[in-house]
Amino acid sequence: MKGEREKLAEKYFNCSESERAAFEAGIKLGTIYHQFVGTPINEENAGLLERAMVEGTMIQPFVIDAEVHIERGPLKSKKGEFDYVSLSGPMLAVRLVVGYGNVKVIARMKHIPEINYPLMYIEDITRIEKR
Amino acid sequence: MKGEREKLAEKYFNCSESERAAFEAGIKLGTIYHQFVGTPINEENAGLLERAMVEGTMIQPFVIDAEVHIERGPLKSKKGEFDYVSLSGPMLAVRLVVGYGNVKVIARMKHIPEINYPLMYIEDITRIEKR
Amino acid sequence: MKGEREKLAEKYFNCSESERAAFEAGIKLGTIYHQFVGTPINEENAGLLERAMVEGTMIQPFVIDAEVHIERGPLKSKKGEFDYVSLSGPMLAVRLVVGYGNVKVIARMKHIPEINYPLMYIEDITRIEKR
Amino acid sequence: MKGEREKLAEKYFNCSESERAAFEAGIKLGTIYHQFVGTPINEENAGLLERAMVEGTMIQPFVIDAEVHIERGPLKSKKGEFDYVSLSGPMLAVRLVVGYGNVKVIARMKHIPEINYPLMYIEDITRIEKR
Repeated sequence: MKGEREKLAEKYFNCSESERAAFEAGIKLGTIYHQFVGTPINEENAGLLERAMVEGTMIQPFVIDAEVHIERGPLKSKKGEFDYVSLSGPMLAVRLVVGYGNVKVIARMKHIPEINYPLMYIEDITRIEKR
Repeated sequence: MKGEREKLAEKYFNCSESERAAFEAGIKLGTIYHQFVGTPINEENAGLLERAMVEGTMIQPFVIDAEVHIERGPLKSKKGEFDYVSLSGPMLAVRLVVGYGNVKVIARMKHIPEINYPLMYIEDITRIEKR
Repeated sequence: MKGEREKLAEKYFNCSESERAAFEAGIKLGTIYHQFVGTPINEENAGLLERAMVEGTMIQPFVIDAEVHIERGPLKSKKGEFDYVSLSGPMLAVRLVVGYGNVKVIARMKHIPEINYPLMYIEDITRIEKR
Repeated sequence: MKGEREKLAEKYFNCSESERAAFEAGIKLGTIYHQFVGTPINEENAGLLERAMVEGTMIQPFVIDAEVHIERGPLKSKKGEFDYVSLSGPMLAVRLVVGYGNVKVIARMKHIPEINYPLMYIEDITRIEKR
């Protein structure tokens, strides 16, 4: 059942359900990247930061599921005063499931070595049974 | 003409052109919000920050046009050492045009008082002539 | 005992121990504010975000202790699709203890209603016994 | 002449003028780094982003001067849809002058290859003539 605010919000949209679902998925991936890139990180807090990123995503509209993985490679042997790094795009892998109306989108962010870019993409978009 | 990297990137997508266009628009709006919210701002630097936000958006994939407006109201009579604010969502209005393949999306972010939320939405999505 | 990198780093500094300690405290407070302001938050994830902010601070150089409190007031009765907020400065209260050499700094960030500003300040700075 | 708000703010501080000046310099460097790291950048918008970072710093309390340089090396031959990068710490060089009371601090941020770290440090701190 849609909330009162979503009923007000949807009047602003002129697009199909699947375009809306894709749009919402894009917002969430852009949010994860630009909110958290730069955060100080080492092996001690990486797991907690992953969870905070997941929870901060789950509370946003239309998110059904979120998984975040921070690559631990760059964090190895970081010990002592200056031994941490800033979270960067290539360290991030995200899997996101967004549902809007009858449409479900599976979107991902991951570093693609061939293009040297943390690509955000739609892995799958499908029509689902009404809940 | 598509670049070499876009040809590699598009293999990862399983969706229509219009869903891809909507997704790309969502990414850019999420990026603007979460990259720049918090930036120190007063009447002196507001115009320059608007331009920096526009330029930082224009260089991203598939962006045709971007306009950013920062509401000056909260900046009035900010003078002296502590008289500036942090850029917040309700101060931001964005209009974004994204083109992917034959599809053009006009997306916006603006504060909607009825729902007390800086809404990101698709104002229009249309099929365009191939360039 | 100082790490190898701190020995290299300290050559760049031309100031007293207490000025260095104050400088390091300032860096950490600026970091907390500008890294995390804008993060999506409601009552469900506030506690986890507080912990992630603490841990991301504790791994930085010379931090002895950190406490972060997010004001829950603005999160009350946030339910449904759009019912969360972006973390803002006035919601944040931080207590930070930094130690450099023989000096200990207790620094805070908190919203001061009289000046309508999330003030970062040095509550106490003291000479401590060598460890 | 001190503003009304600074008179209220300074009651919260228990430290010397030089410690306060160092603290304020630290805040500004932490702010620059964590506000802007992650911003999309290529050769087209680098100059404008530098200026926006300078202006966003100049409006903060006690800042006398600020210079920001973004290393252009990683931006060379970035052309086409995906050819831009996210601003990262090692690309940033900052020189900041802060004045508090009778004290002037020159602080810097720059990447130090030997420690592989974007070091923030106090280059000089001096007593100045009252203005």
